[in-house]
Amino acid sequence: MANEDLFKKVVSHSKEYGYIFASSEIYDGLSAVYDYAQNGVELKKNIREYWWRSMVYMHQNIVGIDAAILMHPTTWKASGHVDAFNDPLIDNKDSKKRYRADVLIEDFAEKLEQKAQKEIDKAKKRFGESFDEAQFVSTNDRVLRYREEKQAILNRMAKSLETENLADVKALIEELGIADPDTGSKNWTEVRQFNLMFGTKLGASADSATDLYLRPETAQGIFVNFLNVQKTGRMKIPFGIAQTGKAFRNEIVARQFIFRMREFEQMEMQFFVRPGEEMKWYEYWKETRLNWHLSLGMGKENYRFHDHEKLAHYANAAADIEFNFPFGFKELEGIHSRTDFDLKAHEEYSGKKLQFFDPELNESYVPYVVETSIGLDRMFLAVLSHSLQEETLEDGSERTVLKLPFILAPVKAAVLPLLKKDGLPEIAHKIIEDLQWDYNVIYDEKDAVGRRYRRQDAAGTPYCITVDHQTKEDGTVTLRNRDTMLQERVKIKELSEKMNDSISYKKWLS
Amino acid sequence: MANEDLFKKVVSHSKEYGYIFASSEIYDGLSAVYDYAQNGVELKKNIREYWWRSMVYMHQNIVGIDAAILMHPTTWKASGHVDAFNDPLIDNKDSKKRYRADVLIEDFAEKLEQKAQKEIDKAKKRFGESFDEAQFVSTNDRVLRYREEKQAILNRMAKSLETENLADVKALIEELGIADPDTGSKNWTEVRQFNLMFGTKLGASADSATDLYLRPETAQGIFVNFLNVQKTGRMKIPFGIAQTGKAFRNEIVARQFIFRMREFEQMEMQFFVRPGEEMKWYEYWKETRLNWHLSLGMGKENYRFHDHEKLAHYANAAADIEFNFPFGFKELEGIHSRTDFDLKAHEEYSGKKLQFFDPELNESYVPYVVETSIGLDRMFLAVLSHSLQEETLEDGSERTVLKLPFILAPVKAAVLPLLKKDGLPEIAHKIIEDLQWDYNVIYDEKDAVGRRYRRQDAAGTPYCITVDHQTKEDGTVTLRNRDTMLQERVKIKELSEKMNDSISYKKWLS
Repeated sequence: MANEDLFKKVVSHSKEYGYIFASSEIYDGLSAVYDYAQNGVELKKNIREYWWRSMVYMHQNIVGIDAAILMHPTTWKASGHVDAFNDPLIDNKDSKKRYRADVLIEDFAEKLEQKAQKEIDKAKKRFGESFDEAQFVSTNDRVLRYREEKQAILNRMAKSLETENLADVKALIEELGIADPDTGSKNWTEVRQFNLMFGTKLGASADSATDLYLRPETAQGIFVNFLNVQKTGRMKIPFGIAQTGKAFRNEIVARQFIFRMREFEQMEMQFFVRPGEEMKWYEYWKETRLNWHLSLGMGKENYRFHDHEKLAHYANAAADIEFNFPFGFKELEGIHSRTDFDLKAHEEYSGKKLQFFDPELNESYVPYVVETSIGLDRMFLAVLSHSLQEETLEDGSERTVLKLPFILAPVKAAVLPLLKKDGLPEIAHKIIEDLQWDYNVIYDEKDAVGRRYRRQDAAGTPYCITVDHQTKEDGTVTLRNRDTMLQERVKIKELSEKMNDSISYKKWLS
Repeated sequence: MANEDLFKKVVSHSKEYGYIFASSEIYDGLSAVYDYAQNGVELKKNIREYWWRSMVYMHQNIVGIDAAILMHPTTWKASGHVDAFNDPLIDNKDSKKRYRADVLIEDFAEKLEQKAQKEIDKAKKRFGESFDEAQFVSTNDRVLRYREEKQAILNRMAKSLETENLADVKALIEELGIADPDTGSKNWTEVRQFNLMFGTKLGASADSATDLYLRPETAQGIFVNFLNVQKTGRMKIPFGIAQTGKAFRNEIVARQFIFRMREFEQMEMQFFVRPGEEMKWYEYWKETRLNWHLSLGMGKENYRFHDHEKLAHYANAAADIEFNFPFGFKELEGIHSRTDFDLKAHEEYSGKKLQFFDPELNESYVPYVVETSIGLDRMFLAVLSHSLQEETLEDGSERTVLKLPFILAPVKAAVLPLLKKDGLPEIAHKIIEDLQWDYNVIYDEKDAVGRRYRRQDAAGTPYCITVDHQTKEDGTVTLRNRDTMLQERVKIKELSEKMNDSISYKKWLS
């Protein structure tokens, strides 16, 4: 499938097979918020567990926590979010619509790129096989001009934003003649910074209410608990604290389905190390996290590192693990060397010491931190979009199959009585009662068995277990593999062990 | 331990052994919000999983979902929360402090009860063993007067609140001479209703921002998704939708540790049935849920049903499963027959039909709903407070032991090398590498082994596996049971199976 088609198909398949629904759909949805449906909740749960086991259970020096979404507001002063977690916004005075100024400019720049691409495509068509794209691009005046102009615009914007020169961002919009995409009006307000945190109030009275924020990241919940965990858990540096949980960002422009949502879930781990040893651990975690992704078997070619040149104020090194989404390579996970920025800031704002006494060095210090941070919803989208495939079978028919890694599949097996009679349903239910302790298994008796296989293929179920008349004779069933479509006869007693060969954490994580 | 002492001990033990920390403690905490620490996160996760498996995996007609915390605001109009989810509040004009008017009155009534109790205690002391409490209570003028007065106050308050006669609630406070508990001032404002939902705003501009609420219950996320789940999951009535997730209530008076928090987690299941069959299912779920609690082995005598006489506007039957907390029997779970109130309200507000076509009856209807709703944090507190025990051993020494049900314990086994040398640590690590695929296991080498046993007892770890010199000779270790303190020699190879006898879902849930 072409990428754009694939993405559309992922969205519609997500609804049809019970993975994702628009939030509050009966009220026409809530923008950039989604609900996980009956299969989606299991896939999400399985991804979360796969991460948790690899981080917490497989590392003796990592423990988990589950901090609240609501935190003391000073947390966000210390972290810098109150002052600097902003988007530059601009309103159109006629349409009353609000936009991200940087996105308007980026969209304009993107159109220049499209013009350049159009020139290239035209030439390609004209010259056919003999066309040398690199040569054409480096010598064609129009292409060169478009791309130079694009770069100049992006550079000017970046500089203006960095120096907080918002007047120049507006000037740039006016000079480029950028109009409201909806109405064409060029009647713009000033550009202003808008904080991305959702605010709320704790307590009842106007006088005494405390302004709170919904956390925009889970990391700070780890930093403020650092010393409590270290002491009560008797942890020694280097050690890590892992956490999964919801975070909220009031994005003005949220798009690409569940890739960028206003409510999302993070899986973060903060690893506390000796100052000076952070680069060693930064490299260790880059490699370890990439290997975790590769363990799922979704193709080495679909991942790449992107090392940041421009670093956030708290970091001295940062890299993304990018995944090949239907809309291109995009950030899936970040690995950041955050220095002692966060702990020092919390020391300053709380007046409490956040230090570790290192018995080997016989000294106390504020540890440095290496963070691994992955969006659970993004990971979900990566897995889902990679897995959705359309195949042409030998007999020329087509099937849609969701080739989820077996360990992540919501339902591990569907148990199907060949017929709704002759005691076959009873045997099927008995099999479910045995398997349910180890696997999430379901029963399906509706429609011809071939149609049931297709339905389970599309839902991503690794195995179909079919009970037929032979079952009554010799206690065997057929076990059908979703990907190979091969069926083998297996004794009922041996089903659990057989499935365990392909669905165990040991197989996937070791 | 006396109940009050036990409760204090639970709170301090929770911190000392890494179960619960005050949220943002370095900033002196956020009132009525708590963080789950390294052991707490695992216990919470295990309770959630124990519930999920019993509800979703063991019922072929129940599926899960995971709806967002942020929902379309009309949801809360339809559910009645915008108009009726209120607490009656009163401010003291001098101290500027705000109180729940009903709590001030209840506290006053409670003092009358304490006076009555004091009379009883005095008489008990005077008469000694011959004291007949029932007879005394029924004939003593003072006791009778205190209790009548108390009941009259509570009745009047209940009636005034029910009829929204807030002026009379204030009059009652003044007549009783209730003063600000902090300052003694009796200078009160009027009583007003205050909505318990946390509000926030979606979108950036003042003009276009949408007023949202943090969901005060997870149930509505199920109702708005009812038809999508039914259709894409091909569910037939009766069927259920289960969900776990955070909910938020801006409680003015939040107390008793994690029993009543502003941010908490619910585990809810809505079961959709034919109209007219709801009482059958209501009884079914009362029994099923009580059995789930009993499966944990925390004593039948610690649970009781409390059938509601006064029903919420949406219910035609409701009962609580109460648990014997350190502060008395309190609601742990609610089972509610919610009729078709919610689905009909969403039909009205959304203009969408939320009906099921019943092929057996050949007609469409709005299903009735039976709900089971349990607070995960309350369940956590029930388990933790029941499990915390102090024992006097045969040799006269004392031990603190956290007798968590094995299936829920955060760490299943601690692996302890007897000495930090002779290759024993290496063997211990090797055992962890084998067991980690099935169990969360930890390594502990610090202090004498007896002290390590005590530490693991207090942390709630079911097993200690000790590696000694005999291990090197015959490949056996000692396996020590937390509750019996008995040790047996077990082959390393047989550890996993041995532990499985007491730590498997099949054992606990079937």
